[in-house]
Amino acid sequence: MRVAVMTAPGEVRVEERPDPRIEQPTDAIIRLAATCVCGSDLWPYRGVERVDEPRPMGHEYVGFVEEVGSDVRNVRPGQFVVGSFFASDNTCEICRAGYHTHCVQAQSAAPGGAQAEYARITLADGTLVPTAETPSGDLIPGLLAASDVLGTGWFAAVAAQAGTGKTVAIVGDGAVGLLGVMAAKQLGAERIIAMSRHESRQKLALEFGATDVVNERGDEGVARIKELTGGLGAHSVIEAVGTQESMMQAIQSTRAGGHVGYVGVAHDVSLPGDELFFSGVHLHGGPAPVRRFLPHLIDLITNRTIDPGKVFDLTLPLDQAADGYRAMDRREAIKVLLQP
Amino acid sequence: MRVAVMTAPGEVRVEERPDPRIEQPTDAIIRLAATCVCGSDLWPYRGVERVDEPRPMGHEYVGFVEEVGSDVRNVRPGQFVVGSFFASDNTCEICRAGYHTHCVQAQSAAPGGAQAEYARITLADGTLVPTAETPSGDLIPGLLAASDVLGTGWFAAVAAQAGTGKTVAIVGDGAVGLLGVMAAKQLGAERIIAMSRHESRQKLALEFGATDVVNERGDEGVARIKELTGGLGAHSVIEAVGTQESMMQAIQSTRAGGHVGYVGVAHDVSLPGDELFFSGVHLHGGPAPVRRFLPHLIDLITNRTIDPGKVFDLTLPLDQAADGYRAMDRREAIKVLLQP
Repeated sequence: MRVAVMTAPGEVRVEERPDPRIEQPTDAIIRLAATCVCGSDLWPYRGVERVDEPRPMGHEYVGFVEEVGSDVRNVRPGQFVVGSFFASDNTCEICRAGYHTHCVQAQSAAPGGAQAEYARITLADGTLVPTAETPSGDLIPGLLAASDVLGTGWFAAVAAQAGTGKTVAIVGDGAVGLLGVMAAKQLGAERIIAMSRHESRQKLALEFGATDVVNERGDEGVARIKELTGGLGAHSVIEAVGTQESMMQAIQSTRAGGHVGYVGVAHDVSLPGDELFFSGVHLHGGPAPVRRFLPHLIDLITNRTIDPGKVFDLTLPLDQAADGYRAMDRREAIKVLLQP
Repeated sequence: MRVAVMTAPGEVRVEERPDPRIEQPTDAIIRLAATCVCGSDLWPYRGVERVDEPRPMGHEYVGFVEEVGSDVRNVRPGQFVVGSFFASDNTCEICRAGYHTHCVQAQSAAPGGAQAEYARITLADGTLVPTAETPSGDLIPGLLAASDVLGTGWFAAVAAQAGTGKTVAIVGDGAVGLLGVMAAKQLGAERIIAMSRHESRQKLALEFGATDVVNERGDEGVARIKELTGGLGAHSVIEAVGTQESMMQAIQSTRAGGHVGYVGVAHDVSLPGDELFFSGVHLHGGPAPVRRFLPHLIDLITNRTIDPGKVFDLTLPLDQAADGYRAMDRREAIKVLLQP
């Protein structure tokens, strides 16, 4: 099969590799209907994370079950499935509490990559959620978004306690931040302030439910949020970047007693204890337990309440994966869908 | 009047100063029935915080209202009152959300000190809570504890979501940590693990409701908590110290999806973003909005459900304040009550 492999920072190529096979009785093999490039794939692409050996890429996937291991009970060949980027058993105490990414058996869901024609999915019973029927083609981008970016934006909004009557600010205008806007809207937020300085992203934020757009960032961004909230700060702030500046911007934009939901993967972030202490905010986040939300998100997408697939503003054949990475790295595309 | 003044690290003396007077129409003057030395008073005493000029000390107080300013409506001379160490208006949006320490008018409640015969209390209407009747003498230590250490331990337990069926661990065996044990018990926690290596404090922790005592600290302490919780960590952890080690011990002792309530005043603490991210815990804390809890705590104390006054294991006349500081600094006393 063909699979996108990163050989060094900035270097992605599509290679021929052996088709994946069932290795554990809990595995499933799926044939991908669509896959995509993640913002987190850009960390190694940009050299922020090391690439020590050629790495098959991708962890977002939807597709058809081809084969299941002997212990798999909940999915069967022919079903269309959506899964999370983290595999989880969905039965342990941590999963039952909704923290699937911290499952006692947590592991990579697609260890051989998912920017590919086929993928081996681990802990298939816990990880995969079948749709009621085979979705029509136009729903596939949305369902693919549920697999990671929508689930992550949704978790951030829940962690930030975005809800009825709340003012929610969103730091980060990538796909996760934009879908955080969508999540805040669905959760009933009254006012949704997207922080973005890119016209196309601002437009999508407004389409997803943002009521205000703030161009400023850093201290000026914080000052604008304070100005818009009677000097108090937002009730809820979603952090979807993962840098020192974005974390501090999120914390400082939140009122005392408010909630920061952070899902940007922390790189070289160090939080000053005294500032955090006197901020009085709630802080919660980390790798999103997307599996918790999948059944609900699949419903919202298949009954056409939401269309998170709009974050894909570039679609390429899998063979052009390198072009997809380049477009996202240069911020020429918000998110790139790859067709195997 | 007499008031304890810190002139330099390690130097406390009781001086004669003019009696406080109403300065703002929202002030009240109280005659102290009891006051005490706080763990946070030890930061400047130990030179961790600077002492640039002689500083009247103390911010924990109960006593009788002597006089009120012209705008004060909720308390009147003769009433016995309990107040928080932070003054708040109890009417702004932040107070109504329960975050009185971050009130838009937040200020020191006793700017002239409270280790004294009299104190000027600011924003008296919002800050002071009168008791239904003059309490009997044996209740006064408990009511004094409500003014700060009990309110702080209670907030930490609430922030850590200690509650029915939960396993709660407490980092720190000072008065706040011990009263965090009491709060967890009252909130319905199933298992309460006190981390302490001092026999007298362990004994009080057990009396307050601890079910387990862990002697180890740091990595060994974390390993013991994991061992006691099926490898997962506690649901709720109270942090009541404020050092790098104690914060990391608290975060690492908490299971993914669990809650850390931290109230130790952060000194030179810096939280590594990646470790926090992958921990998946909720983090909340800061200066405790004691005022939120005062009416409930006063009820629990006056109806003799709880006796937080037991944390005072040394009582001295105000004139011997220096001895009180010394005993707490040397950990010869858990908490020192001063009689004006």
